[in-house]
Amino acid sequence: MSTNLRINGKRLVSRLAELSRIGATPEGGCRRLALSDEDKQGRDWLVGQMQALGLTVKIDAIGNIVGILKGQEDGPAVVMGSHIDTVGTGGRFDGALGVIAGVEVLAALRDAGLQPKRDMAVIAFTNEEGARFHPDMLGSYVWAGGMSVAAAHAEKDADGAVLGTELARIGYHGPEQPGFLPAYAYLELHIEQGPILESEGGGLGAVTGIQGICWLELTLKGRPSHAGTTPMRYRKDPGLAAARINIFANELTRTIPGQLANSGVIRVQPGNVNVVPETVVMTLDLRNPLDAPLAEAEAAVRKFCAELSARDDIAISFRDLARFPATPFAEELIASVEASAAEFGLPIRRMISGAGHDAQMMSRLCPTAMVFIPSIGGLSHNPAELSTDEDMVAGANVLLSAAWRAANA
Amino acid sequence: MSTNLRINGKRLVSRLAELSRIGATPEGGCRRLALSDEDKQGRDWLVGQMQALGLTVKIDAIGNIVGILKGQEDGPAVVMGSHIDTVGTGGRFDGALGVIAGVEVLAALRDAGLQPKRDMAVIAFTNEEGARFHPDMLGSYVWAGGMSVAAAHAEKDADGAVLGTELARIGYHGPEQPGFLPAYAYLELHIEQGPILESEGGGLGAVTGIQGICWLELTLKGRPSHAGTTPMRYRKDPGLAAARINIFANELTRTIPGQLANSGVIRVQPGNVNVVPETVVMTLDLRNPLDAPLAEAEAAVRKFCAELSARDDIAISFRDLARFPATPFAEELIASVEASAAEFGLPIRRMISGAGHDAQMMSRLCPTAMVFIPSIGGLSHNPAELSTDEDMVAGANVLLSAAWRAANA
Repeated sequence: MSTNLRINGKRLVSRLAELSRIGATPEGGCRRLALSDEDKQGRDWLVGQMQALGLTVKIDAIGNIVGILKGQEDGPAVVMGSHIDTVGTGGRFDGALGVIAGVEVLAALRDAGLQPKRDMAVIAFTNEEGARFHPDMLGSYVWAGGMSVAAAHAEKDADGAVLGTELARIGYHGPEQPGFLPAYAYLELHIEQGPILESEGGGLGAVTGIQGICWLELTLKGRPSHAGTTPMRYRKDPGLAAARINIFANELTRTIPGQLANSGVIRVQPGNVNVVPETVVMTLDLRNPLDAPLAEAEAAVRKFCAELSARDDIAISFRDLARFPATPFAEELIASVEASAAEFGLPIRRMISGAGHDAQMMSRLCPTAMVFIPSIGGLSHNPAELSTDEDMVAGANVLLSAAWRAANA
Repeated sequence: MSTNLRINGKRLVSRLAELSRIGATPEGGCRRLALSDEDKQGRDWLVGQMQALGLTVKIDAIGNIVGILKGQEDGPAVVMGSHIDTVGTGGRFDGALGVIAGVEVLAALRDAGLQPKRDMAVIAFTNEEGARFHPDMLGSYVWAGGMSVAAAHAEKDADGAVLGTELARIGYHGPEQPGFLPAYAYLELHIEQGPILESEGGGLGAVTGIQGICWLELTLKGRPSHAGTTPMRYRKDPGLAAARINIFANELTRTIPGQLANSGVIRVQPGNVNVVPETVVMTLDLRNPLDAPLAEAEAAVRKFCAELSARDDIAISFRDLARFPATPFAEELIASVEASAAEFGLPIRRMISGAGHDAQMMSRLCPTAMVFIPSIGGLSHNPAELSTDEDMVAGANVLLSAAWRAANA
């Protein structure tokens, strides 16, 4: 890169460590639930960092924090970002890394005395995790126009606290309209949150998109009966049906390319040793990088359930819990991420993102891409979540290079 | 039968209806949890009925109520009985029928002016259901010497109430030593609590014994991981393992004669849609009329789990929840029950009892048999529990005939 631009790695690591102390847990993780007191402290700290850098800081009506570096020309901005809220038992890296790396990109430009052609910005989006308020990725969803501010403000947490009230309470109900800053491109650095990069030799990930998601809740109703006095032929056991569905969904992952399946919830009623279950509620989390095979998997599950229901006389009803189509990222931006890694001699591989990210929402608005760095042990949403300093700095340098290229294109 | 002895059917039905009003629930069932105020009222009523009949009523130290009709000779008594406690959402017939039929047998003898050669007695055993205090069949277990009075008195219910204290509170900590009345034979009339008799054309059941029980709790530990970011090959999913175990146990019921299997408890942790489970706790209720095939079934399950554990890297541990060997009843008494039914021209079939009963404990002490009558819809432990008046009277006549025969043998 002609500018010889580099992230100040030491400062990046130290800035992340500073944020990690806000909401730090004894286990070494972070708990900064969206719009909690800890989130407010984290936000205040972030705003302070942005102001110290000379960025223009704006807050929108859903609490998204936007730090803007003015470019030489007017027009849409190159946006970087992620989130600083965490799950209840969160780690130090998920989200926070992407925001801080974005700040460090702008700090590196300031250090180098460079002004980009386009505006550049860092956004910390509100309530990405969905751990306190539904849905997840709420801040970027509202920013992208997927949900109204009023609807988002009306969301309640498990204790009945209202999002809009909490936003005002912590002082982050800002004056700007979400989406006020038009975007030329969006780039997000994030930890992988899975085991692929580490298990397959390390290096970075050039994320090609976010896989499609289909979350189903199945309610299976049979007939409760006494497990000692009811011959097997008289039983209608929804627990057994749930077991067959779980195994069937698992087998689909071997026949449909790229298919994932998980049954994470299985609740059995009445739940007595000696009573054949009456009702089972179970969930299926089906994902695929492509929409067509995901639809094929869902259809196969529904067909299997229909046949099982008819054969074993178990009533099976379905409820959609979530449904997101696959989100392919912009090829030119993915290629730019790869080229940036190549400049630094860093190994990088193309990969799909298994989890949702704010980038998913931003891709509705502009060309989008992401950079992943390895997660040790594939752990995330866990106090033991860890990435190496070396990988963080490498990822931030790739972000810097790709963002700088976009900002001057 | 030369005596032309018959139960007064109308009185039997009306006496059962009277008891049903004590602890009656709006749904039409009964709630007389052991040693509750309702149980005390039921007991007081029963003692009154026994005294009105001229029986000698004795209470033992575990609260078993014994009504004795003196025979012509000294020696062991022919005992009938069951229990009047119910589960929380109990019906009107489970237990109550056997006690009241026993009382009606003795009333029929008084009406006919007959005195048996041997003593005859009816016992209402304490806490058969196990719905309030562990274990179930507690009163008959203590009576048969399987558990000490002191240990039984120390049992606590879910709210911490102590059995001995509750027994004294309701005035049923009696002076007699449990088991004080030696038994020549034990006969118990009970509803089937299953669908076999009704589904297969009605008629009575001559119970040949109580099947063996093996209750296992399995704890399966895998590795929690993100259902979006973790490739299938990196997962260790105990939910999937639990599904395979459930299906395997079910398949055993097709290959091992008489085998039953149920998985009534399946608890999945952490229980999130998008998290591959970390831990599953599940139960298996395995039953068989014979001990050898029951042991075969348990061994097959353990072998399957060991192989599954090794193959899928899921740690599986076992805990015994209950284990009772099969209880075969006395052939001569089963035959006597059949002969009694034949006298009345009543259809009867031999069958195994799927559930445990006080008879299981009494068979440790003396020749034992049971008579079953059909349960409409196979329902029990349910307010809708129902048997017809005709079947109740038929069952009570068989009890009368078999008990009279034993009392004069």
